Amino acid sequence: MDISHIEHLGIAVKSIADSLPYYETVLGLKCYNIEEVADQKVKTAFFKVGQTKIELLEPTSEESTIAKFIEKRGEGIHHIAFAVADVAASLADAEANGVQLIDKAPRKGAENLNIAFLHPKSTKGVLTELCATNA
Amino acid sequence: MDISHIEHLGIAVKSIADSLPYYETVLGLKCYNIEEVADQKVKTAFFKVGQTKIELLEPTSEESTIAKFIEKRGEGIHHIAFAVADVAASLADAEANGVQLIDKAPRKGAENLNIAFLHPKSTKGVLTELCATNA
Repeated sequence: MDISHIEHLGIAVKSIADSLPYYETVLGLKCYNIEEVADQKVKTAFFKVGQTKIELLEPTSEESTIAKFIEKRGEGIHHIAFAVADVAASLADAEANGVQLIDKAPRKGAENLNIAFLHPKSTKGVLTELCATNA
Repeated sequence: MDISHIEHLGIAVKSIADSLPYYETVLGLKCYNIEEVADQKVKTAFFKVGQTKIELLEPTSEESTIAKFIEKRGEGIHHIAFAVADVAASLADAEANGVQLIDKAPRKGAENLNIAFLHPKSTKGVLTELCATNA
């Protein structure tokens, strides 16, 4: 698998509005986009830190996986996304190495990028996303 | 606070030896250093991914905070470390903005860098480290 950098970190929060003062005033980062990803039942807020984005994830429904994550573990880092040139090829690599996949094929995520998730059972407990550097 | 990039991500694992095949063979990252940080009761393994390091943290004692983290939450992402030019000045900034500090003054961490931790109560659940870009 040819990973170039960490594309983003997904962080589960109860409320983006309540989290903005910490990210903007304390850390000095700038939120450049807020969008809703309806099929994931989340609202997302993006910040850029060097090469990597921070993606705050606020559940918009109690059935959202993010709502369940927060209920079980509290707010905190939810997943890591690695940038790869070709998500489908990287998935095939991972599967050939015995990794359990959540997504058997790439799908569209936030910012309309091709993405796919690996199962944390195969990744030492870290929910891991592969994310195309180009859509 | 003037953050340039994510210096590293700390990931709690039960065993570095058991985790190396995933990071090296599946993800294709290269471990460039393994060292023990005696006063933190951890062994650490480092990988570089673009601008950011991944730091695996294996407890060397049951009293290690990493052992307690794994016992409570399982293996997974433990903390995020932001690179700042001046850790002491960034701590003063954070405290002036009402952030609770774990370290009131910088101390030496892995790779002999100046570091300090902010308390997750003030950071929306994310254990956050500030890390100097130069020792």
